[in-house]
Amino acid sequence: MKISMYAMSHDVFKKSLTQLLHVMDKGVANAKARNFDTSVLVASRLAPDMLPFSKQIQLTSDFAKNSLARLAGIEPPKFEDSETTMDELVARVKKTLEFIATLPASSFEGSETRDIKIPLRDRTLEMKGLEYLQHWVIPNFYFHFVTAYNLLRHNGVDVGKRDFLGG
Amino acid sequence: MKISMYAMSHDVFKKSLTQLLHVMDKGVANAKARNFDTSVLVASRLAPDMLPFSKQIQLTSDFAKNSLARLAGIEPPKFEDSETTMDELVARVKKTLEFIATLPASSFEGSETRDIKIPLRDRTLEMKGLEYLQHWVIPNFYFHFVTAYNLLRHNGVDVGKRDFLGG
Repeated sequence: MKISMYAMSHDVFKKSLTQLLHVMDKGVANAKARNFDTSVLVASRLAPDMLPFSKQIQLTSDFAKNSLARLAGIEPPKFEDSETTMDELVARVKKTLEFIATLPASSFEGSETRDIKIPLRDRTLEMKGLEYLQHWVIPNFYFHFVTAYNLLRHNGVDVGKRDFLGG
Repeated sequence: MKISMYAMSHDVFKKSLTQLLHVMDKGVANAKARNFDTSVLVASRLAPDMLPFSKQIQLTSDFAKNSLARLAGIEPPKFEDSETTMDELVARVKKTLEFIATLPASSFEGSETRDIKIPLRDRTLEMKGLEYLQHWVIPNFYFHFVTAYNLLRHNGVDVGKRDFLGG
């Protein structure tokens, strides 16, 4: 066993994206049981000026695929943010899992010192791979995943921390 | 620069706990500006059967102090969960930061293969240090930190992702 950039990024997000699918499945089942359309969940927000569930899922996906691609030294694939239904959002998460599975662990070697460029709307951030993972990728990924979870929880979906964490 | 258990745990949580203090400060300032008592925030929940803000802060603190202590090979200090006000919760986070600063980086060496025991209410989990950090400590820490943030956001506190992430 050894600690590596791959173990601390790919392995962590693979597990959490799998749990995200599980949590979304519970949202779908709960909507069916309570007889409302999942579009209510997809559009839900915790505050009027906060991004809705759909965008939280797209951003969770983006932080996984973009950061793993950059750490692996390749250009992140562009996923169109065209999902409007829960089914499409589930497919987006599955596509993210499929993409990250294509990145060989060996391509992460030395990524702790790689120069990473993060294009934002108004500027480009630059940092080394380790700092990027510690203070950008991990907090951002969980920011959106936990917010998506909290949106379901707030709307009465029967999810608990064990669903979030997995076995 | 190198990747280490210390860098991926202590350094990550130190930064995030510092941002948690900043986010809590904004909650206090917002309550003052809108003329309500911070006890409203302290007791707030996203669902009736979900832990309140106060407990989210105590658990964020616990996941930082307990996990860093265990990875460093020492018994985690017991903090009484006696905080009932925002001031006391802020002090709890500061005390957590003070504690984790006492752990020498050298005590984390080899912690990726250390046997970690996690006492839960109904059972004891056992895993190696690396798996503990990847799939238990990091997701749990952010689960409670992001939920605390979301509680403030839901209650109209003017926090955004930059407050959560820091500079």
